[in-house]
Amino acid sequence: MTTAAENRIVDVTVVAKPFLDDIKTFVDKEFPDGNSPKLVGILANEDPFAKMYAKWTRKACERVGLRYETIECKRTELEDKVYELNEDAEISGMMVYYPVFGTLPSFMAGVSMDSYISNCVDFKKDVEGMCFTYIQALYRNQRVMKNDKGGNVKSILPCTPLACVKILEHLQVYDSKEGLAGKTITVINRSQIVGHPLAAMLANDGAEVYSKDIDSMFLFKKDSKGRGRLYETEKNFKDVLKESDVVISGVPSKGYKVPVEDLSNNTVFLNVSSHENVDKKELFQKKKGITYVPKVGKVTVAMLQRNLIRLYNGYHKKE
Amino acid sequence: MTTAAENRIVDVTVVAKPFLDDIKTFVDKEFPDGNSPKLVGILANEDPFAKMYAKWTRKACERVGLRYETIECKRTELEDKVYELNEDAEISGMMVYYPVFGTLPSFMAGVSMDSYISNCVDFKKDVEGMCFTYIQALYRNQRVMKNDKGGNVKSILPCTPLACVKILEHLQVYDSKEGLAGKTITVINRSQIVGHPLAAMLANDGAEVYSKDIDSMFLFKKDSKGRGRLYETEKNFKDVLKESDVVISGVPSKGYKVPVEDLSNNTVFLNVSSHENVDKKELFQKKKGITYVPKVGKVTVAMLQRNLIRLYNGYHKKE
Repeated sequence: MTTAAENRIVDVTVVAKPFLDDIKTFVDKEFPDGNSPKLVGILANEDPFAKMYAKWTRKACERVGLRYETIECKRTELEDKVYELNEDAEISGMMVYYPVFGTLPSFMAGVSMDSYISNCVDFKKDVEGMCFTYIQALYRNQRVMKNDKGGNVKSILPCTPLACVKILEHLQVYDSKEGLAGKTITVINRSQIVGHPLAAMLANDGAEVYSKDIDSMFLFKKDSKGRGRLYETEKNFKDVLKESDVVISGVPSKGYKVPVEDLSNNTVFLNVSSHENVDKKELFQKKKGITYVPKVGKVTVAMLQRNLIRLYNGYHKKE
Repeated sequence: MTTAAENRIVDVTVVAKPFLDDIKTFVDKEFPDGNSPKLVGILANEDPFAKMYAKWTRKACERVGLRYETIECKRTELEDKVYELNEDAEISGMMVYYPVFGTLPSFMAGVSMDSYISNCVDFKKDVEGMCFTYIQALYRNQRVMKNDKGGNVKSILPCTPLACVKILEHLQVYDSKEGLAGKTITVINRSQIVGHPLAAMLANDGAEVYSKDIDSMFLFKKDSKGRGRLYETEKNFKDVLKESDVVISGVPSKGYKVPVEDLSNNTVFLNVSSHENVDKKELFQKKKGITYVPKVGKVTVAMLQRNLIRLYNGYHKKE
């Protein structure tokens, strides 16, 4: 980028709106009786943030006419509850508010109880795209699955990474022909919920993506088969930040700030943490042409609803 | 148990022997040309212990006439290598020597890269029973799967937990009719490789199993549907050890020792760590009727080979 334009803050309401409008139009047309696709959120922890998020999801669903129900259970009952809902024909999608067992340490690395639970969810109801079927499709860049009738159903992508993609499309970081080819992106966080799938998705779309976590950095880029793949990199984080057209930060701790002096002018900065991962005031004082996106949640919830409708149309529609 | 008998140390060679004899007899009879089922071990780390284990597996396979090959690759090539071997009709089973990415921390809990890789292995070649298909079967106590021809194939169980079961059968902790009903067992370690599946398997067989890890303890016991399930428990570890007929410890650190004063006479103690998790000298001085199993590895590798033959017969046999 060559111009040093004004700094700007982007409110993503405008990104979410066309998706929400489409959903509402679809729901109003197809379900005048109110019997619209139903999402269940399962609360199996005592986390006040999870309760808040459940309320927020309910309201968002009500606004577009989708049905939503929160079910509470003990964590020891969660697995059975998931299997019960897998069999419940009334439900098109479900989500569990994690972490449930997530904070329990283990003597050795391995699959956590939470990731075990996320794989108990039938992929036909996995509105968050967290089960292995979708993770594998994502990492292999397979965008379509078959349903029981041999029809094509688009694969479900995890909501927050998908929201980032939609925001970058809106900001025209994506070229209509070339996608993200030629772009360098840094993603700080390599969790399986946000950073890891996001890095792979952006690489699937052509970017060189540096994936940074506490004490390691990898490069994701497209291989000869068109799949975003993991590579070792010798670069250092400081240089990588300088080179990046886009920086996406999702560090879930209050104290973490991306060093402003390492960012370039004209950077697009997406904050996907609930904490502000950069000193915005300093950023705006010292750099030019910054596009700062402080929150992506409104688009995330729109993607959740879009996924629900995709699951409904693909697997649960009554003929 | 009422008698206070002699203490004894069990060498599990005697437990492994009938399994190894069966395997050798089968291989000699079915593959006089040497074209026996083939196992591939993938080395994608620089861990000297993994290299040692690969050599050990090779020797063990050679002894019974099974084919074995170690393939080395970079960790960034591992995923593709796994998919390549999934398609290779010459291979009946594969195993990856973990950890590969396992020690990389992440900002948030979730599926590790290693567990992602373990799920890329086709279940028809997953000789270690680590993919989600088998994990789910284990936790649901479903012991049989269908192959492409509609035939029944027994589900693959992870090798170390299965070895523990076979050792407990040999030691007649299992009742021929009642299984483990009425028995109390403590398993120290809740990793997905050893402690967690082991606790579930022992509960599937009727025991009350206390599953202890760094800062939490759960109870696994059979529910009304016959599946070993997770329950909260208020008991403390000290009392639980005292009540236990069997203690199985798999803590992978040198310093960890189960307190001898908390163990009862007549306890069966299985050490599944590469470090000795109890002070054997003190144990034998202070307690009576102890059955101490210092190592289970020989049975583990027999179970690996048994799993390979099961996969071969179930999915890869040439008609």
